[in-house]
Amino acid sequence: MSRVTARRRTLRISPTGVVTRPDTLAVEEPLEIRTGGQSLTVTMRTPGADIDLVHGFLYAEGIIDSAEDIVTARYCAGTDENGQNTYNVLDVQLRRPVPITPRPFLTNSSCGLCGKTALDEVRTRLRYPIAAGTPRLDVDTLAKLPTELRARQQVFDATGGLHGAGLFTAAGEALAVREDIGRHNAVDKLIGWALRENRLPASDLVLMVSGRASFELVQKAAAAGIPILGAVSAPSSLAVDLAAESGLTLVGFLRGESMNVYCGEDRLAL
Amino acid sequence: MSRVTARRRTLRISPTGVVTRPDTLAVEEPLEIRTGGQSLTVTMRTPGADIDLVHGFLYAEGIIDSAEDIVTARYCAGTDENGQNTYNVLDVQLRRPVPITPRPFLTNSSCGLCGKTALDEVRTRLRYPIAAGTPRLDVDTLAKLPTELRARQQVFDATGGLHGAGLFTAAGEALAVREDIGRHNAVDKLIGWALRENRLPASDLVLMVSGRASFELVQKAAAAGIPILGAVSAPSSLAVDLAAESGLTLVGFLRGESMNVYCGEDRLAL
Repeated sequence: MSRVTARRRTLRISPTGVVTRPDTLAVEEPLEIRTGGQSLTVTMRTPGADIDLVHGFLYAEGIIDSAEDIVTARYCAGTDENGQNTYNVLDVQLRRPVPITPRPFLTNSSCGLCGKTALDEVRTRLRYPIAAGTPRLDVDTLAKLPTELRARQQVFDATGGLHGAGLFTAAGEALAVREDIGRHNAVDKLIGWALRENRLPASDLVLMVSGRASFELVQKAAAAGIPILGAVSAPSSLAVDLAAESGLTLVGFLRGESMNVYCGEDRLAL
Repeated sequence: MSRVTARRRTLRISPTGVVTRPDTLAVEEPLEIRTGGQSLTVTMRTPGADIDLVHGFLYAEGIIDSAEDIVTARYCAGTDENGQNTYNVLDVQLRRPVPITPRPFLTNSSCGLCGKTALDEVRTRLRYPIAAGTPRLDVDTLAKLPTELRARQQVFDATGGLHGAGLFTAAGEALAVREDIGRHNAVDKLIGWALRENRLPASDLVLMVSGRASFELVQKAAAAGIPILGAVSAPSSLAVDLAAESGLTLVGFLRGESMNVYCGEDRLAL
């Protein structure tokens, strides 16, 4: 976990006194994604699973449709002041090179001018229809997913500063968990993993995230054909609207034995 | 608060049973910022204080240096399916028009290729030197800021889904508080407000945020000359490094009477 966490000196002030001690922090570093040597985007991310991240990002952007669309992905030779490779620039060779103008993240570039336009646009991006009523998921199983996810967030344990995202079967089995300082990166890493494992569309799986559910996360789930999205915290208005339009099940405030189901309750067995 | 919150039907499942009820959600909608009719960026934001948001964003990007650099900022006439103005596109007329190529957010466009490059770049962006040791802040005052901020987060109360950011004096007086679904937007709204109020550089103020402290937030604070940044949750490694390089005081895990001081403790009176 060398580059995933970093230690920094901190002055800890509390009612019991003041002590100087090391604190373990989540590492945040930029990752520049290039295609054919041209810069496509830079995202602030926690190092690790960068190859998955790039697959998931390019997939969500609609730039690739399969893992085979990426011929190679290699770190550029950029070095820091000590002559060490930064591992912060990934150059991707695409099977079918596309003319790409640098552009913002998915959340920005895909959204057009208003919620309506954004919703229209994402519908055209859906590669897979989301089948109604499947899979069926027991609410007791769903209620356990936050604990199952949390138990696998190793870096959060050390730092208290990372988002987690996990893919689970309808029986509640964890297939993969990813952590990142950016929630969109954690989901990109997860979906990139699924793409490389040839598990997309993930029409039988549940995506569980540790924080809130934004429009962007619903968009990524829908793009990967994932029918159920659970979140520990609140969804946004646009997240609910997009989930309903796309036929997803969206569950928020998943805490203890309680939850709020915003749409798609036909997949839940009470 | 019509467009700040929205109500959606939800199925509430808990040990006491299943009920259908309305839930109040934080509104998330895209805001497209244009200059001279040309699209500059789109950010997902909670509507409200859009003029402040645009000022703060353009200021952090280095596109404007004062409120007077924006001649006009008006909503475009885009309409939704009901013929209503979406209020989601703001066209800004600059005093000194600059050739702008569409580009990602500050966090992306400003970061270059690696942490070192990013730090180099932000140093060149600092408009104001950050004076050491001033202002002096009592740790008891600092410990009260999360509660003071929270008390002013009206929309969080209703939704549980918004980030908050506040500007405080060294005596702990709240000058302004802004909420948004995106933490960077909340800070942009706050700094945009300060810019319009002619309060920058805010060399005597404290920026308090409700969540974690990322590189991006330290960057925005430094750009506005704010010497102290407090966060309820964890900072990232790069946030600490940039704060130390810029001469800021960075305090995290501000909870109850406890806190972690990562750098700049010379401003704190124990």
